[in-house]
Amino acid sequence: MRSTMMDAPLLVSRILEHGSTVHGTAEVATWRGDGASRMTYAEVGATAARLAHALRDDLGVTGDQRVATFMWNNAEHLVAYFAVPSMGAVLHTLNIRLFPDQVAYIATHAEDRVVLVDSTLIPLLAKALPEMSTVEHVVVVGGADPAPLLAAGDGRIAVHRWDDLLRDKPDRYDWPELDERDAAALCYTSGTTGNPKGVAYSHRSIWLHSVQICLPESFGLGPTTRELAIVPMFHAMSWGIPYAAFLTGASLVMPDRFLQGAPIAAMIAAERPTLAGAVPTIWTDLLNYLDNNEVDTSSLTEVIVGGSACPPALMHAFAERHQIDVIHAWGMTEMSPLGSVARVPAGATGDAAWRYRYTQGRVPAGVAARIVGPDGKPLPADGTTVGELEVRGPWVTGRYVGDDEPDPEKFRNGWLRTGDVGTLSADGFITLTDRAKDVIKSGGEWISSVELENALMAHPAVLEACVVGVPDPRWDERPLATVVRREGADASAEELRDFLAGQLARWQLPERWAFVDAVPKTSVGKFDKKRVRADYAAGILAVTELPG
Amino acid sequence: MRSTMMDAPLLVSRILEHGSTVHGTAEVATWRGDGASRMTYAEVGATAARLAHALRDDLGVTGDQRVATFMWNNAEHLVAYFAVPSMGAVLHTLNIRLFPDQVAYIATHAEDRVVLVDSTLIPLLAKALPEMSTVEHVVVVGGADPAPLLAAGDGRIAVHRWDDLLRDKPDRYDWPELDERDAAALCYTSGTTGNPKGVAYSHRSIWLHSVQICLPESFGLGPTTRELAIVPMFHAMSWGIPYAAFLTGASLVMPDRFLQGAPIAAMIAAERPTLAGAVPTIWTDLLNYLDNNEVDTSSLTEVIVGGSACPPALMHAFAERHQIDVIHAWGMTEMSPLGSVARVPAGATGDAAWRYRYTQGRVPAGVAARIVGPDGKPLPADGTTVGELEVRGPWVTGRYVGDDEPDPEKFRNGWLRTGDVGTLSADGFITLTDRAKDVIKSGGEWISSVELENALMAHPAVLEACVVGVPDPRWDERPLATVVRREGADASAEELRDFLAGQLARWQLPERWAFVDAVPKTSVGKFDKKRVRADYAAGILAVTELPG
Repeated sequence: MRSTMMDAPLLVSRILEHGSTVHGTAEVATWRGDGASRMTYAEVGATAARLAHALRDDLGVTGDQRVATFMWNNAEHLVAYFAVPSMGAVLHTLNIRLFPDQVAYIATHAEDRVVLVDSTLIPLLAKALPEMSTVEHVVVVGGADPAPLLAAGDGRIAVHRWDDLLRDKPDRYDWPELDERDAAALCYTSGTTGNPKGVAYSHRSIWLHSVQICLPESFGLGPTTRELAIVPMFHAMSWGIPYAAFLTGASLVMPDRFLQGAPIAAMIAAERPTLAGAVPTIWTDLLNYLDNNEVDTSSLTEVIVGGSACPPALMHAFAERHQIDVIHAWGMTEMSPLGSVARVPAGATGDAAWRYRYTQGRVPAGVAARIVGPDGKPLPADGTTVGELEVRGPWVTGRYVGDDEPDPEKFRNGWLRTGDVGTLSADGFITLTDRAKDVIKSGGEWISSVELENALMAHPAVLEACVVGVPDPRWDERPLATVVRREGADASAEELRDFLAGQLARWQLPERWAFVDAVPKTSVGKFDKKRVRADYAAGILAVTELPG
Repeated sequence: MRSTMMDAPLLVSRILEHGSTVHGTAEVATWRGDGASRMTYAEVGATAARLAHALRDDLGVTGDQRVATFMWNNAEHLVAYFAVPSMGAVLHTLNIRLFPDQVAYIATHAEDRVVLVDSTLIPLLAKALPEMSTVEHVVVVGGADPAPLLAAGDGRIAVHRWDDLLRDKPDRYDWPELDERDAAALCYTSGTTGNPKGVAYSHRSIWLHSVQICLPESFGLGPTTRELAIVPMFHAMSWGIPYAAFLTGASLVMPDRFLQGAPIAAMIAAERPTLAGAVPTIWTDLLNYLDNNEVDTSSLTEVIVGGSACPPALMHAFAERHQIDVIHAWGMTEMSPLGSVARVPAGATGDAAWRYRYTQGRVPAGVAARIVGPDGKPLPADGTTVGELEVRGPWVTGRYVGDDEPDPEKFRNGWLRTGDVGTLSADGFITLTDRAKDVIKSGGEWISSVELENALMAHPAVLEACVVGVPDPRWDERPLATVVRREGADASAEELRDFLAGQLARWQLPERWAFVDAVPKTSVGKFDKKRVRADYAAGILAVTELPG
């Protein structure tokens, strides 16, 4: 039996229309260093119409062509977020933090035809532009000299000014009726191995994700919210907050390029946000500033932290010293990005509540989650069994851009393999303990390298400990512990193993030990486990092997 | 460009699966008169699986056959809400308040094959059953004697007991993958004219509506909410709250048949709900009880009122005397039913805030709204121009069950004509002033009958005033004021017209006046305007006609 419901597609243009009329007096405040510039959502709507006219009439953008942004979080980026998908084109948010050759690779892979760029980012874009072979037009937002772009474009690329293009354009646009499953926006993951891979969000997935973001169980956005959106709009769609804000009428405060503790504190005091979202490093910086300066943060009661696990000490410091609840969230570019939010369930208080808050959080109805063993078989969601986390749902990608079939390394039986290893509790809370590529697969059981590292680093003689899996003829893999001892300390492999034996099962204890002066690190300061494994394979490490 | 998102349908079975696992410890408490019985959402999930097995294996329900309920709000009804759509069948919630011939008409029109009935409702169902020609099975929930049903079924209808059917059934069911646009549930409107008309909600519309219900801008449901769900599950799907509760993990308190002030107060004190929803009459009854009895209502901070406009006095009384915010909501069975919620927008305080709360509320992104003139042309959303309200969106019906084409009386150019007349403000707040059938169409302008009545009833001599449109050769329609004077008062038509002239435009003032002993009323106590118009046409009323 068919339902009698209307066939009304879920479109970004509908979110824009709603936000710019019903919530037309809501505003986006963009920090400009010494204060904020303001644009109402009604003005965002009118400007989006002007941009769409300019893209279509002046730059010839048609159909589902890609329009890229190379921008900070600001009102003009917000305009592009709505104008490009609403007109049927596809928004591609380029990550300004990548190397120029990566930017060029991504832009070319996505076949970007137009790039919108903040004038403060002209020098950075100019480095990538010569290799961006599909780009025909660059539009500069702001007043800086566009000469470097003209030079980089070498006559092939036209350079326009945003203000000139939008001047005299109509402030209404007849947004087309699209298929809700068409692509609306593209984002590439900055994976640690191989080339970046693209995810194409649909109008449908953006709508469903936006509504979820607003729920009290997630971020809890409503018309009285003022959200300080620090998560970059070039990173996982700023967690979908721009779309969610228009959907519910929450106002936005955007930091542009001012991302240090001092300006963030100034924004909070001046713009009185009620909610904020960012990665932990930003909050660490802010905490230092707040601890040493008198700042009125009374409007701000919650900050959502995601991107990587938040140190519990940071959560406690904000709660106790600044009356701000730090809420853990977890997600992936592949998930739009919301996967889970660590809100305390009904009835939990005190330490029990904190234990929930340390987890990666609880999945919503739109995200089915399970953990599976090395053979891909589902494992019990009992809060203790460790496996790889797999997810699926209407805002989870099923493949990467350009792939006809899902890459079996990343997808299995319709599920996304997150590459994260951990536990899932019966009540839907995820606790991640390791990356799948770092977990040690020993005789069909998994040993968490992170758990071993944390246990080892609790020993007074240990400064750093990095644990990797190395080949073992009998168990497939066994842990190798690479240890940097504190100056003057001389703990032996036996002593450290005995120390671990008090906390871990016997079969988890490493037999192989290497004492080194320093653990090799990646460019972002993490242990370079690939290098450690390679050093071991090459026989470079001096390894002590204890009897198993 | 196609998106890369997974093709994951929005299904009721997914809401059930999520609620009964991730929120498995949430509970539905059903009031039994002297306390509540409890069922966790994990148990609801297991019982829903048992019911689905019983319906399929024992009663032979297949495909999209209709399974009806004739039940109060209780845990078993909740089980049916999930089991029937999840298995691919269609839930039909029969309205126990209708006359038996209407119930039979609806059940037959929907082709109901099975009816689940609360044993306290056996006598009522038995009256309708002989004419329910498509029904083959009745399942009785509870212990009363089913003999009246056997008699009414006359050997044609098998009668089963819920407990017997579900005993020994597996507590898991392999819910099928359905098309999200398939019908999940049916509800018939109890329209005041003609036969009731059916609306078939889809899995998709239920999902989208459920998420909207949970948003802070709407009801604001989350995992720590305990919702007292008084709105009948046989009326507009209990406003979608059962599905929303499972989607987000809110616990439910259900009143079964105990709907008077005293038991509702007892439920609030014992079950500590944080939120409640019902029609105004229930809250009036409760307010009387609370004003005269000592009841701990401290858990309850908000009640949502819908179904008809809430008197401002009731809103103020709850706020001032019981610290409970009464929030206005508006919707229709045709809208799943959520249309708008009157939450105060950012920045409004004091009287301005109250003025927002008196309106029908603000539309969400999923509901596009506009007002149109008599010719169907859109009118400005300026908060003052009056027109008929039209809506559209993914949880709004586009036709009625059994109609191949939308009925032009109720649908126009893809919009649902709500039959309500009022204003729409630029910021999306709806204020309804009249029913379209009661508004007076005078020379291309609309005159609100309700506005004239309210103005007249403010005159000290007037006890009741009912205004209807009557035919006029020059203006098409003109208002007729039918007035009941207070005992001893003798205000003339001229005096009353002069009184109105101080508040209303001259062209809105009635020329035709009739003084009567009583205004005819409908069975639910509203002015019977059809009857007044008929009396006028028949020349029964003594009409004074003032010069225009």
